[in-house]
Amino acid sequence: MSTNNRDLARLPRGFRDRPAADVLAERQMLDRIRSVFESYGFDALETPAFEFADALGKFLPDQDRPNEGVFALRDDDEQWLSLRYDLTAPLARYVAQNYDVLPKPFRRYQTGSVYRNEKPGPGRFREFTQFDADTVGTASMLADAEGAMLLCDAFDALGLGGQYVVKMNNRKILNGVLETAGVRDDAQRMTVLRAIDKLDRLGAAGVRLLLGAGRKDESGDFTKGAGLSPDAIEKVLAFTASGAALRSDVCGRFDALVGDSADGAQGVKELREIDAFLTAAGYESTRVAFDPAIVRGLAYYTGPVLEAEMTFEVRNEDGQLVRFGSVASGGRYDDLVKRFTGQDVPATGVSIGVSRLLAALSARGLTAQDVFDGPVVVLVMDRDAIPGYLAMVRELRAAGIRAEVYMGTSGMKAQMKYADKRQSRVAVIEGGDERARGEVTLKDLALGAEQAKQVKDRDQWAKGGSAQVTIPRSELVARVKAMLGRA
Amino acid sequence: MSTNNRDLARLPRGFRDRPAADVLAERQMLDRIRSVFESYGFDALETPAFEFADALGKFLPDQDRPNEGVFALRDDDEQWLSLRYDLTAPLARYVAQNYDVLPKPFRRYQTGSVYRNEKPGPGRFREFTQFDADTVGTASMLADAEGAMLLCDAFDALGLGGQYVVKMNNRKILNGVLETAGVRDDAQRMTVLRAIDKLDRLGAAGVRLLLGAGRKDESGDFTKGAGLSPDAIEKVLAFTASGAALRSDVCGRFDALVGDSADGAQGVKELREIDAFLTAAGYESTRVAFDPAIVRGLAYYTGPVLEAEMTFEVRNEDGQLVRFGSVASGGRYDDLVKRFTGQDVPATGVSIGVSRLLAALSARGLTAQDVFDGPVVVLVMDRDAIPGYLAMVRELRAAGIRAEVYMGTSGMKAQMKYADKRQSRVAVIEGGDERARGEVTLKDLALGAEQAKQVKDRDQWAKGGSAQVTIPRSELVARVKAMLGRA
Repeated sequence: MSTNNRDLARLPRGFRDRPAADVLAERQMLDRIRSVFESYGFDALETPAFEFADALGKFLPDQDRPNEGVFALRDDDEQWLSLRYDLTAPLARYVAQNYDVLPKPFRRYQTGSVYRNEKPGPGRFREFTQFDADTVGTASMLADAEGAMLLCDAFDALGLGGQYVVKMNNRKILNGVLETAGVRDDAQRMTVLRAIDKLDRLGAAGVRLLLGAGRKDESGDFTKGAGLSPDAIEKVLAFTASGAALRSDVCGRFDALVGDSADGAQGVKELREIDAFLTAAGYESTRVAFDPAIVRGLAYYTGPVLEAEMTFEVRNEDGQLVRFGSVASGGRYDDLVKRFTGQDVPATGVSIGVSRLLAALSARGLTAQDVFDGPVVVLVMDRDAIPGYLAMVRELRAAGIRAEVYMGTSGMKAQMKYADKRQSRVAVIEGGDERARGEVTLKDLALGAEQAKQVKDRDQWAKGGSAQVTIPRSELVARVKAMLGRA
Repeated sequence: MSTNNRDLARLPRGFRDRPAADVLAERQMLDRIRSVFESYGFDALETPAFEFADALGKFLPDQDRPNEGVFALRDDDEQWLSLRYDLTAPLARYVAQNYDVLPKPFRRYQTGSVYRNEKPGPGRFREFTQFDADTVGTASMLADAEGAMLLCDAFDALGLGGQYVVKMNNRKILNGVLETAGVRDDAQRMTVLRAIDKLDRLGAAGVRLLLGAGRKDESGDFTKGAGLSPDAIEKVLAFTASGAALRSDVCGRFDALVGDSADGAQGVKELREIDAFLTAAGYESTRVAFDPAIVRGLAYYTGPVLEAEMTFEVRNEDGQLVRFGSVASGGRYDDLVKRFTGQDVPATGVSIGVSRLLAALSARGLTAQDVFDGPVVVLVMDRDAIPGYLAMVRELRAAGIRAEVYMGTSGMKAQMKYADKRQSRVAVIEGGDERARGEVTLKDLALGAEQAKQVKDRDQWAKGGSAQVTIPRSELVARVKAMLGRA
């Protein structure tokens, strides 16, 4: 594809470039999360972007057909490789491969890009970053409770205290409810899960259709339903509506709903253990709630699941105030490693959607956009004087100040425009006259931004007023520091 | 592919997992490089892993056939996407796409994974990390000189002072030499470049064959040569052998070699400018040398090129002492953005091979492996006491100490083994007796590692001796800090 024999400079849909301010804000956020995860004892791990397609498995979330949505290709050895779609499936492969030498439980955190070959939408990308922490090799509910605490502590460290809720549930309880309703088919169960997962968006009426024969959406597309009986549908909806303010009350309601199901009873018992750990550690129901409507669309979860939501409101694309919503999720996946090893390796973890959390911080004015500081720019008034300009930036850098000599070949006006675009706060000018007197001129660009746009020549520049000052060359570093408020 | 109905846990060749110590060492190295790059005024940019195949172009290094070695696939929209094979081609696309709003020159740094669909080898991966800095939109040789200075300063910041040399050359000079030898064909010129690029490995005799009819390697594979005349071959070899200790002397020899070629003369003039900037800034020929044997295999370079080498020796796989060699490279690529915009956008940059540089640091004992510290592990002596254990880790974390409650369900011996494997330096034990007395026992695992392996039960444990101490619960944080040498 080319126009006029030229290639088109563009990105495929669902991918994006991120400029400096975004990169810095995200880096600072990731550093804080990492610090919390490390304080909990999780160790770093990096796995590659590619895995063998068969090792990755068929666990793509929120997809009705297996393996849909994965980027896959055949390499030069004619083997099928897939780009990871999450960080959990590669972790399972890693643990299985290194099982004998790893500490058990194995506790790792990992952050990195994951890839989905899906239709992108607003805020929905085909490459995005996750930040995960998992504990592999324990059936203890302490690990599940810890996942919720870890998220709370990370949010608190980011300044989001009081503005989130971590909602937990247990797949086993829904399984118990379905069992009492006579549903035992795995595929049918997954359809039920995905239907409940849409409660937020479709409401009870829409989910009722998806639990039954199916639902036609506004565009006319028909989604086949789970085909439950009317009685089973009501049982499932009663379950999803059984929430309460206190975790212990929710457990009480669950007891009644799971009836004789052993699986269901085990699920409630597990939540009661989690409740005890959370309560003892000071995480009350207002921070970590039990919510029957949380089921997660992923097929691999086997026990407790969780979703972390920001509770404050933001305006959506239509200008309406809506709850910010989900920024992290997780759960227990006891069978994921077993695929490889054949032995039971129970595991649980949490995953932060990095872009979503950064958007939440941004919505609350909590990103560190201000860490971005344009460099001090030393203008090139005279190409023969460049050695002297290089000495200036060297001195400034040694004092911890970002600084550069203007690298282009344009004149004064373009150089000032450049410094503005770089969000530089100080420009340094040393022409022949200044040099002869052993002086330099400092231009405060924050103060003089408006004036600077009008500058046409050196004479006019010299009349710039309070936004600039001429000082002895020897005071360069001290005076720049003062202008930057770092004296 | 499966055995016994199980999936195989393995990685495709050329990909690797990296455990905590490696991740931490690399992170600390990247932080230092980033700090130097930012001090020079470069701003962060992140572009996605995928680009349209046509936007990426056909500039893969060291490949004789275009587009070989790229991971490419068709997405759901039936468009060809490629994974980036370097960070330069995506930068050219980014600049072209955002040309009107960017400061000019545009200065950005970027670090990230790049992908090559090639045969992997020792130290040669199909996914690896580069760290680049580029200045786009200037023809000034100051920017090329700055690239060399930037690498020097980054190496110095990492403790590698005196152990490296940045070698520079200029493509235009070789073009001039080839012009005087009657070679004007682009493809032939690239073959000559790739032949010279192998000087290190094949020596002058091997390169002589590649400049002529061709060369058969030890495995019997034949590589077709550039087909130069004997006279042209000698001119090229004389050029590659025209090095000297001082940059100014090399320039003098180049003058003679380029004869009447305007391109060649321009190349020498550019190197003289670079020499002047480097000399003025204090980067002498011992740190930044001009070396005619450096040409770089990449097709897109148009002017000055450089390669940074570590000069110390390491043992290779055969136990021989060899020079560590290249860790970074770069050069001027004036036509890469023009592909998109049609207008001249001259550009230059450098790229650090992150794994190579980390290996160099490691070889010199300069990696921060010691930043890795296993967490303090609070043993679970009694599951009912977990709330108290959770309070302990919370106190320790608040004091900046990594700490965790043992998350598994195994007994004392397995818990001690776990703490050892985690490289924990302190284990905290609070059994019923200690709790009744308001005490905890701290086990110094660094001191008592050998003893710990022998521990079979609590009685034996209690006799552990100097490696453990029982203290009041209230002194937990202070005493752990002391054991970690942080009091």
